[in-house]
Amino acid sequence: MNPDTRQKLMGVSTATLCTALFKRGLVHQFIQDVRPLNPSLPNMVGEAYTLRYMPAREDLNTIEVFKNREHPQRKAVEECPPGAVFVIDSRKDARAASAGGILVSRLMKRGVAGIVSDGGFRDSPDIAKMPFPVYHQRPAAPTNLTIHQAIDINVPIGCGDAPVFPGDVVVGDGEGVVVIPAHLADEVAAEAAEMTAFEDFVQERVMAGQSILGLYPPTDEANRVAFEAWRKAKGR
Amino acid sequence: MNPDTRQKLMGVSTATLCTALFKRGLVHQFIQDVRPLNPSLPNMVGEAYTLRYMPAREDLNTIEVFKNREHPQRKAVEECPPGAVFVIDSRKDARAASAGGILVSRLMKRGVAGIVSDGGFRDSPDIAKMPFPVYHQRPAAPTNLTIHQAIDINVPIGCGDAPVFPGDVVVGDGEGVVVIPAHLADEVAAEAAEMTAFEDFVQERVMAGQSILGLYPPTDEANRVAFEAWRKAKGR
Amino acid sequence: MNPDTRQKLMGVSTATLCTALFKRGLVHQFIQDVRPLNPSLPNMVGEAYTLRYMPAREDLNTIEVFKNREHPQRKAVEECPPGAVFVIDSRKDARAASAGGILVSRLMKRGVAGIVSDGGFRDSPDIAKMPFPVYHQRPAAPTNLTIHQAIDINVPIGCGDAPVFPGDVVVGDGEGVVVIPAHLADEVAAEAAEMTAFEDFVQERVMAGQSILGLYPPTDEANRVAFEAWRKAKGR
Amino acid sequence: MNPDTRQKLMGVSTATLCTALFKRGLVHQFIQDVRPLNPSLPNMVGEAYTLRYMPAREDLNTIEVFKNREHPQRKAVEECPPGAVFVIDSRKDARAASAGGILVSRLMKRGVAGIVSDGGFRDSPDIAKMPFPVYHQRPAAPTNLTIHQAIDINVPIGCGDAPVFPGDVVVGDGEGVVVIPAHLADEVAAEAAEMTAFEDFVQERVMAGQSILGLYPPTDEANRVAFEAWRKAKGR
Amino acid sequence: MNPDTRQKLMGVSTATLCTALFKRGLVHQFIQDVRPLNPSLPNMVGEAYTLRYMPAREDLNTIEVFKNREHPQRKAVEECPPGAVFVIDSRKDARAASAGGILVSRLMKRGVAGIVSDGGFRDSPDIAKMPFPVYHQRPAAPTNLTIHQAIDINVPIGCGDAPVFPGDVVVGDGEGVVVIPAHLADEVAAEAAEMTAFEDFVQERVMAGQSILGLYPPTDEANRVAFEAWRKAKGR
Amino acid sequence: MNPDTRQKLMGVSTATLCTALFKRGLVHQFIQDVRPLNPSLPNMVGEAYTLRYMPAREDLNTIEVFKNREHPQRKAVEECPPGAVFVIDSRKDARAASAGGILVSRLMKRGVAGIVSDGGFRDSPDIAKMPFPVYHQRPAAPTNLTIHQAIDINVPIGCGDAPVFPGDVVVGDGEGVVVIPAHLADEVAAEAAEMTAFEDFVQERVMAGQSILGLYPPTDEANRVAFEAWRKAKGR
Repeated sequence: MNPDTRQKLMGVSTATLCTALFKRGLVHQFIQDVRPLNPSLPNMVGEAYTLRYMPAREDLNTIEVFKNREHPQRKAVEECPPGAVFVIDSRKDARAASAGGILVSRLMKRGVAGIVSDGGFRDSPDIAKMPFPVYHQRPAAPTNLTIHQAIDINVPIGCGDAPVFPGDVVVGDGEGVVVIPAHLADEVAAEAAEMTAFEDFVQERVMAGQSILGLYPPTDEANRVAFEAWRKAKGR
Repeated sequence: MNPDTRQKLMGVSTATLCTALFKRGLVHQFIQDVRPLNPSLPNMVGEAYTLRYMPAREDLNTIEVFKNREHPQRKAVEECPPGAVFVIDSRKDARAASAGGILVSRLMKRGVAGIVSDGGFRDSPDIAKMPFPVYHQRPAAPTNLTIHQAIDINVPIGCGDAPVFPGDVVVGDGEGVVVIPAHLADEVAAEAAEMTAFEDFVQERVMAGQSILGLYPPTDEANRVAFEAWRKAKGR
Repeated sequence: MNPDTRQKLMGVSTATLCTALFKRGLVHQFIQDVRPLNPSLPNMVGEAYTLRYMPAREDLNTIEVFKNREHPQRKAVEECPPGAVFVIDSRKDARAASAGGILVSRLMKRGVAGIVSDGGFRDSPDIAKMPFPVYHQRPAAPTNLTIHQAIDINVPIGCGDAPVFPGDVVVGDGEGVVVIPAHLADEVAAEAAEMTAFEDFVQERVMAGQSILGLYPPTDEANRVAFEAWRKAKGR
Repeated sequence: MNPDTRQKLMGVSTATLCTALFKRGLVHQFIQDVRPLNPSLPNMVGEAYTLRYMPAREDLNTIEVFKNREHPQRKAVEECPPGAVFVIDSRKDARAASAGGILVSRLMKRGVAGIVSDGGFRDSPDIAKMPFPVYHQRPAAPTNLTIHQAIDINVPIGCGDAPVFPGDVVVGDGEGVVVIPAHLADEVAAEAAEMTAFEDFVQERVMAGQSILGLYPPTDEANRVAFEAWRKAKGR
Repeated sequence: MNPDTRQKLMGVSTATLCTALFKRGLVHQFIQDVRPLNPSLPNMVGEAYTLRYMPAREDLNTIEVFKNREHPQRKAVEECPPGAVFVIDSRKDARAASAGGILVSRLMKRGVAGIVSDGGFRDSPDIAKMPFPVYHQRPAAPTNLTIHQAIDINVPIGCGDAPVFPGDVVVGDGEGVVVIPAHLADEVAAEAAEMTAFEDFVQERVMAGQSILGLYPPTDEANRVAFEAWRKAKGR
Repeated sequence: MNPDTRQKLMGVSTATLCTALFKRGLVHQFIQDVRPLNPSLPNMVGEAYTLRYMPAREDLNTIEVFKNREHPQRKAVEECPPGAVFVIDSRKDARAASAGGILVSRLMKRGVAGIVSDGGFRDSPDIAKMPFPVYHQRPAAPTNLTIHQAIDINVPIGCGDAPVFPGDVVVGDGEGVVVIPAHLADEVAAEAAEMTAFEDFVQERVMAGQSILGLYPPTDEANRVAFEAWRKAKGR
């Protein structure tokens, strides 16, 4: 990823990114119904590396399967590139875990940028204390083998009803996670950074008592002028 | 609203209010499945001012529509009376936002008492830090245009399966939000204040080790006597 | 309960217990979709004492019914043994409360170990401040009479899709609640304590940068040796 | 059951019965989300005989358990009184069967009046061909042991969110199933029979082109007179 | 409505209409999760006339309210124009009826084109026998007063997550119901009629054994030629 | 597939197959919440050929994409082997179609054994008239492009929460669809055929008035003897 793009994405919200995508006709890029275990962290930014789960068949998912070093879940954890976001398609099913504290720790230590599952994680109280962005639906203590079988690494998946292609740029904040198609990452990041400057200006004006009419959007010329002055003053 | 009623409602819980309404045969007045973004605030109390969303049709909900000062969402934000609670019927759909941080800030600055949506808000981490009561289902980064179209201002609506008429008295606490029909507000507030005194007495007795039998409800005369003494002692 | 078993269960996670149960073919023992109101407490451990709710019929659930000292909800609150966990089958319905702050306080004062409902509690902000483990789905201000009728005490029930028999050993942590069949409690506690030692070792190794391959599970002999040395060093 | 009451209930609809119950403040007596497998049969009428399922624990629900003649499911099937309606609390879970064609056949042969489950039946294509009223949510081929354990016979239960007490009068038609509290059966049946006569009159008038205003309800005196004349003419 | 448009819409499927709308960027016009009570009827075509329900408040929804000739439900039934489709916003809640057999009969007799609710109808077995198109989610015996209050006539509503404006053209077939924005009705009807001719040709070719590749869509010139010949031969 | 196995599977029910799988510890093989569009057909039997959908991204799913002969949906329809069952992972989402009448016709003409989707089909009234087994959740008129993107052919998938591997043996009847792991197909078919003989005997005895106790299961020796005699008499 372009370092400038990454830096811009560290400073914008998923809300602003969703609006930039909406303008481009993309309305399903927000991963529905996931939340950060630790909401106090900086943004999570990275390219998607994916793991696909299918429903578990009991004979193929005994506790012994993890002895196989080629087991896709374990393999993915060791192969996910540093800087990437590990995105898991858990079919929105949080009745059992997508993974637990040890695998999450390993991904953190390997320099991965963060993790998202539309299911749940186990050891969630421990994960919530890590300085590492992890998003899920809700805690789930049972082992993933109970209902999930890891089946595919780095293929296109769905996560929380959003389409996720390997390499898409994934951004998370305290609100949730958005998926930016790879080819749009630079332009969306740039536009979102611009929008953020404007929204910060508007927020300041609103807190000073100004009406939103003519300001948001800036249909009054005076507000556009004021914004340009504000930018200069703020150096943004 | 009667200032005495407002004051009483600042000091009672939504749980106690629900019981007072239950005694009057009203069992659907608690807004289901909403929670405060900032749970540490005092009660929210005000008369309902409503906004109704319908499902968005794409051609009527481009990003350009907000340039229209008569757009119902923006109009409502500027016209909601100070002291009122802004209640949004989002059809329990949190896939996109009901509103975001800027509009919430504007309502706060305009002296509105609080906001409730049975959908979700964007910029939720920012809203959670405001000294302003806002309730929703879950965070939702996508712009409201994605699935919601603001269509009616200050009409009777549903919110979280509760009926809400403009002017109904809306009360929120750390637990959730209850809607008191306008004509019952004074008597329900008065009764709830009385009930709260009794519940505080009971809670004190229970923490001192007394059984609930005969105490809650006070079928033992001795407990009724003790309560009267307690009231005198406490000046309540 | 065996005091040694209780002590072990105070020191293991529900995640580890679920894995021990999974190895025994039991995959539905985690109570789905409940969470602690106060997530900062030590583990909750105790034998299950149950209360079953059925849907309320209006004529049998007026506010007057609590005047009857034999009302099953009130009776259960006074009869649940100290040290037990009070488990309520609320049919996963949180539209009205399973109980409120006063009954929860009474159970706490009576020495009960904790409470679980697959519905919701009222007075949840107060309960969340108590040094007492309570788990539910979400807050619910309306009185239980609105939709629940207490009908049976200490019978086998379902709670969050888990089977719960009176006397089963119930363990809660910051993640959720698991139900251990009574006859398995000792062996599962012992196995989980062993597993916890190993997981602590693994976590330490992972945080030191080691790969999970060959370590988790320990298919490399070297890791088994290292673990034995670690145990000796740590006295575990 | 009073034979006259039974006869009246054979000739009225669940819709009319729900209205009679609504007038008495009972609004949860319709079993939600169940449908007849064979919608062409006459009404089902009988007193409730209940079976309660809880979530299955795997070690207690092997295929061997049915060898036990005291197994509650099999016992209930042999003991349900002729003329009764067999009502099963399946916790609204149709992922596995509540029962199958053989048990349904046995109940039919034993003279039971019908069966209702808020889960599903297996062998549903066969059951749909029987001259015997059976209601469920949707077909479910897996054996009940998969997720259900029969635990209690003839206790108060919930079925499709309706409260069902043994002895309540259960009525099914092509639309669904309603539960009449035992003590109200005679008066509700009588009232519903009267209402049915009036509704038949109204339907006839509407099909003849009359407006519903003043007719339904009959606020115009002329329509009350016409109804009396119609009753005489029809002998109802 | 243009008679030619109406005639075209009588001969096309909701599936084809959805594709024509999809091409125009409209993807939420199919009313989700409703089905015809009588699936053997010709298409339903008419302009939308709407009724909005909100959650019922008990004191405003006693059985007496229907004595008021101005009650919105009854008023709407008498005022809906012949040829229109009566569309009800029941908030996707089928726990109680949107209406019953008598009101449905009145609408039929008044020449209304059909009825759609995203809730349920009572007297559904009777309605299913009428030569009149009615669509709902599932049968619901309880009177609408139980959970619904009619509040607005002929305003924009949601129905099954689709936006419905008064005057939109509503088309139903054996599959479901689609809502065509008023200003697009003529062009969408024309395009759908053309598409239907082509699909009939394709279906004939496929049944004759031809591959869909190059045929559907007709990327092979030969298939375009064959289609033109087919049209001439068939006079379409 | 072994022709003898296929023949046996044509004569047994999905309910019986589920029990045979349950005995082997496989409890998730029934595809949840799908039903036959035409319930009057013989069993569907074939090996699974799969298609995986992911959530649609708008820019990749314009109406133009079908011009590409390599589009996975169209390719799969032309390549699915005769005799196979075409199984689609639609993520249980029926808001848009999995396919329509023309593709279904093409699969039928190509000799495919049947189709299953856990979403919905468009042109469902036409499909319901075909002599071809098709199973889905509910009708869905919108084109699949609206929410589905075909992404993978013949990979392991989930369908209605069941695991499906290419080559698994899929059986459908009037009740639903079950997935038999490939390596178990012969033995499960044989066992199910035996069980069916016994169940037919039991059903005959039950219809003749015999109790199920001692008969089902046949814990009475006399019933085992009677069954052997019955088999000889029937030649089964």
